Parts: sequence; C-alpha cells; structure tokens
Amino acid sequence: MGRLTGGDPSLLRRINSAVVLHALRATDCATLTEVTRVTGLSRPTVEGVVEGLIEAGLVVEAAADEGAARRQGRPARRFRFRAEAGHLLGLEIGVHRVAALLADLDGRVIGAQVRDVDETVDADERLDRLRAAVAELLRRAGVPRGSLRAVGVGTPGIVDADGTVRLGTALPGWTGLSLGERLSRSFKCPVLVENDANAAVVAEHWKGSAKGRDDVVFVLAGLSPGAGSLIGGRLHRGYGGAAGEIGALHLLGREATPETLLSTTDEPLHPLDEQAVAQVFTQARQGDQRALAAMDRFIQRLVHDVAALVLALDPELVVIGGWAAGLDGVLEPLRRELARYCLRPPEVTLSLLGEAAVATGAVRLALDHVEEQLFAVEGTVTARR
Amino acid sequence: MGRLTGGDPSLLRRINSAVVLHALRATDCATLTEVTRVTGLSRPTVEGVVEGLIEAGLVVEAAADEGAARRQGRPARRFRFRAEAGHLLGLEIGVHRVAALLADLDGRVIGAQVRDVDETVDADERLDRLRAAVAELLRRAGVPRGSLRAVGVGTPGIVDADGTVRLGTALPGWTGLSLGERLSRSFKCPVLVENDANAAVVAEHWKGSAKGRDDVVFVLAGLSPGAGSLIGGRLHRGYGGAAGEIGALHLLGREATPETLLSTTDEPLHPLDEQAVAQVFTQARQGDQRALAAMDRFIQRLVHDVAALVLALDPELVVIGGWAAGLDGVLEPLRRELARYCLRPPEVTLSLLGEAAVATGAVRLALDHVEEQLFAVEGTVTARR
Repeated sequence: MGRLTGGDPSLLRRINSAVVLHALRATDCATLTEVTRVTGLSRPTVEGVVEGLIEAGLVVEAAADEGAARRQGRPARRFRFRAEAGHLLGLEIGVHRVAALLADLDGRVIGAQVRDVDETVDADERLDRLRAAVAELLRRAGVPRGSLRAVGVGTPGIVDADGTVRLGTALPGWTGLSLGERLSRSFKCPVLVENDANAAVVAEHWKGSAKGRDDVVFVLAGLSPGAGSLIGGRLHRGYGGAAGEIGALHLLGREATPETLLSTTDEPLHPLDEQAVAQVFTQARQGDQRALAAMDRFIQRLVHDVAALVLALDPELVVIGGWAAGLDGVLEPLRRELARYCLRPPEVTLSLLGEAAVATGAVRLALDHVEEQLFAVEGTVTARR
Repeated sequence: MGRLTGGDPSLLRRINSAVVLHALRATDCATLTEVTRVTGLSRPTVEGVVEGLIEAGLVVEAAADEGAARRQGRPARRFRFRAEAGHLLGLEIGVHRVAALLADLDGRVIGAQVRDVDETVDADERLDRLRAAVAELLRRAGVPRGSLRAVGVGTPGIVDADGTVRLGTALPGWTGLSLGERLSRSFKCPVLVENDANAAVVAEHWKGSAKGRDDVVFVLAGLSPGAGSLIGGRLHRGYGGAAGEIGALHLLGREATPETLLSTTDEPLHPLDEQAVAQVFTQARQGDQRALAAMDRFIQRLVHDVAALVLALDPELVVIGGWAAGLDGVLEPLRRELARYCLRPPEVTLSLLGEAAVATGAVRLALDHVEEQLFAVEGTVTARR
C-alpha cells in the first residue's frame, strides 16, 4: 500500500475500477448515484469506469424494474456485476473418487460431476477420469472451456508451490507428479493445486462449519489422518507445505500400525481399506467385543493425532471431516479427551460440507485467484473504508 | 495504511519524525545531507524534524570527528539516535530462578541480575525476589527507574492478553495470578507479560540460533516441555494463548508419567526434580543399564512431543533450549527420529542463548513495544522504500 502519489493515472484507473466492481458485486444491482455515494468517487469517474467494465463484459445494465418505472416515471438505470462473465472449476482427486464442481464468478456452484475410481489405478488413468468428468460437466452446463478463469485442485500429499506433488503416498504414482503442469494442458487458465485438507479447511471457513472463525483446524479423518489449518483466517501451509501431515505421529509413540489397530483377529487386517474397516465398525455396532476394542483403538489414535494438532496450534475450532467423520462415536470421545488433556480445549464439530469439502475449497481457491486479479488493489480499497 | 490525503499535518509530522529517527537509528550518526538523501525529505523538513527530536531527547549532535575537521575544514554537523534516552527491562520468572536484563533503546544489554529461588516459594516471595533483583540491577547501572520505557516478562503458563496467568502449574500460586498488574505497581511504564517459550523463540530469532529464519519452533525442554513458534516471522500465540503447550501430549499415548519414565527402580522417581533427573543421567553416563534405559525413554518422549509440533506446523527450524538441552545426546536422536517420521524434516539446532533466552526475549518484547510507539507509522515508512 503506502502513499499514492497521484502520478500514475493507469494505477488510479485500476483502483477506481476495482472499487466500483467491488461495490456492484456487494449488491444485486445499483444505480450510478448509489455507486457514487458508496465509493466516494465523482459521478463522471463512476460513469467512465462503469462504461469500461461494460466493455470488458464484467458489468451489464440490469433489466428495469417495471413496478418502479410505473410509480416514479422513468427509473434510474441500474447496473450489476456479471457473475456469468467467467467460470471456475473446483476439482477433487481422491483415493476412491474424482469430483468436479463448476461455479460462476460469485462462487455459486452451477454443476457437479463425480466419478468412482479404483484405488489401484495409476496417475494417467486417474487424471483421464478427472478430465472426462470435467468435459461432461462443461457439456451439461453449456459452458465453453474458454469461459474458465481459474481451476482449483485438491489432492492428497505435500504440494510444492509450482503444483508438483512432492510426496503423495495415498495414490499410486503420485509422488513427484507434476500435477499442476499435467492438468494445465487441458485448460488455458491458471491451475492452482493444493493439499486436500488445506482445501477443505478453506471450504469450511467459506461455506461450512467454520464460517466466521479464523483459527481453525480441519481434520480429514481417514485411515491416516491429515489436517489443514487457518491461522488468523489465512491458510497455514508450513515452511515446506507439509503442515498438518500428522499421519506419521502415532508411529512415534511406538503404537501399532492401522492394520494391527483395526484387526479383530490375531493377524493384521489385510487388505486395509475403507470397506474392511467399515465391516469392523458394523461388527462393533452388533456388539462384537473384539470389533468394539478395535474401534476404540482407532478412535483413540485419532484423538491422539488431533490432540497433537490442538496443543501445537491452539485453534478456536476443530472441524472433523473425511471418511471417519461418518463413524458413530467419533465426536464425543474427541471432545472428552481434548477437554481432559488440552489446557484450553477448542470447540469440536463435524464438517458441514462432508464429501463436498475438498472440491468446494478448490472452487474457493480458484475464486481467490480471480478476485486477486479483478481486485488487485484490494488492500487499498479496504483501507479507504 | 492506505492513501494519505495530505490533509493531516500532525500525521505528516509524525511520519516524517519516524522516518528521520529510523534513518538515524540505522547508522552510527549522520549529517543532515545524508538524512535528506536517505529519506527523500526536503532539507528544511529534515532540519525541523531533527530539532524536534533533539528537544524530545531522542537525538543528539555527535561529537565532531577531529581528523575529518583537520582534513576538510569545518565538518558538517552529525547527529545520532540517543539509545540511552530510555531503558528497557527483560524479566524471567522460572521455577528455580528469577533473572533481569537491563537494555538501552537499541536493545543493547547493559546489565544483568539473577537470583536463585526455591521451587516451593509462593507467588509473593517469588515476585519479591524479582523486585530485589531489579532494584539491584538499576542501582548498579545507575539508571533511574523513571528512565524505563517498557518492561517485558517471560513466565511459565498460559498468559491472557491482560497479563493474567490463566493456567500455570509449574509455579505455586501461579494460576489466576494477575502478574501484569502486580508487577505494574513497581513501574510507571507498560509491563508486557508473555509465556516463557514464546519469549525464548523471539529471542533466538533476534540474537540466537534462529536469526534470519521466520518459521521456527523453540522447544523449552524441561521435565514437561513447552514450545513457542514463529510463523512467517510473527509469534503464534494461538486463539487462547495456549499454542505449543505440548506437555500433556504424552499422556494421550497412554505412556508412562515422567516419574515412571525416569525411574531406575521399580518405584516411580520421587521427588521428581531436575536434581534427581541429573543423577539418573550421571548414572547413565557411568554405564548403568537401568539409567540408560530411563534416559532413552525420556529422550523418546521429547522426540515424540517435538515431532507432534513439527508435523502440525512444518517449521524450517527447531531450536532446542531449556534445561534438557544441556543433556548429552538429545540432539542426535531428535534429528534421526524427525528425519524418519516427518515428511519434510526441519533443521534441528541447540539454543544459542541458553539460560538467557527467556529474559532476552522479554527485552525484545519491551523493545517492540517502544518501537511501535516511536515508529508508529512504520508500515508507511516501509512501504515507501
């Protein structure tokens, strides 16, 4: 920010455009008089800026309100932000499925596609499934590919700033994959790759359980839990993008592997997949003692991992999502144990977005990117208020 | 920040004062011509501001450099920041000792006092010992109490924003103590209370092992470890000031208590204090097998707690300080285990400041406070560069 010297007319024009766009976007539609009042700009400036925004396709004159016209004679012209001027994709790549959400420039979701994927398929096939889902999504919505302004992607693993997966043990062929670059070939707009738990915490903050909360840990509770954190409302990625990768923690305590934890026999559970685990939990609900004990061990491990996060970060709120969030009896033991061991226990709640969290967060990341470009002088705008 | 409209002459004067002070403080001393060049301000403005700063006692004309005078005739007048215009205290309150550092407005330490304290004494007596140390420190340095501009305090426990200890189990009578208010009675300047590990990480960043590193975890490794973290160069206190309070973590893993961990007999070690533990470690060095096993268990617990922090936060650097940092063989197992279990292992190093870390951090917090007042428009100044 800093001082504006007034010596750069193109910067001033951009700032004024952003201010006007911001004002229009905050309302359904507004008259030039209203925009003038809200922005503090002069009438001729507002007229010039709105004209430019109309030419750029970002603003359109709204249809006249006929009732108002009849009552008051010729009504003032009203203008609105064209949320349909561009589109965003939010993609989720998971072990068992890929998903795609299509949204307009207001972040409103206008379509979705999900495809099951076998957990053993390689990276090429997984990406092919995702591309097919995207193609079908765009086709059904009647949105041309050229209308896409940004694509967000949520994926398991540690993701580098350039969209490469530095480490991703959950998916075959994922470590070292240039995911951002591979997906970029299918789009002409920027592709932004983010860790799945990080995308999910952004989503819960935007539309879910963490609305209005700025210090949040989201736990993607699966066979090996991962987490994403907001600190002061901002995503905390860590120095190397590995923050919240707590899956290895229990190993340090010399506790058993998940295969042993979840076993109801004397042998490790093999193969360890969600289906096998679901079966253990069904047995537990039917009163099977060994299954109950296995479930207890599993929840205890989750509690331990979450407690580690909570003690390290001291968040206001912990949101539990992912596959294990659907299990009965995860929430209460978590609350009880956190209250017991944490010096200042946080609230604990379930994800509101459920399976949609990762893809929704990917939409939000794409929207953030587009907004940064549309409102490149946002800080200045905010400071004016 | 935002735009400066130029409509507020007193704000402009303050900004210009801060800019000039900043420039003078960055050098030993400077001529008005040099200040004019560095700041971009006009000569008359610089002259007026420097005059005002001299009146406020913050700037003084430096003694002429006689060599320069002889070479070039009458030399230009030079001015310097008066670091001696005020003083700061950095206080440490610990289980076994209290310590006080006295510093000038450049943060240069000009005196220190340490007092042993019995771990069983109550809050009143502990604070009395601290006050006695401060009085002796000021007396020896010849600094009047009225010269103090801010006092920083590092203490065990969770500290509220108002300086009250919300929870402090390490010291008798500490939970609920209005520490900031109690100490304020002895001083006319602001008293800033901070968790000890938080103060220590600030210190290591300022003058220690973490210079130039912005994503740092400092582990205050004692019988029950605590930690302080910098994220992006800023202290991460957590939503309720409890971030890094990892001492309870091992309880969750259903591991043994420290008393059992460190026992070399079949009975828990009692009383568990640093002396008793030191004895165990001496036995271990002499080859006692049970002591070796106890030491191994103790280090393993420390590794586990640090790993939890690292997985949650993904720092660039971990600094180990506190009492246990002095133990042989803490660093290597930590590095080895972190490399094994962390997806992106951080650097691990020992504290450079050792016992002085907490009090040094308290000085820095006091200095931060004073600088905020002197350079209240810092952000604007920075943005100008």
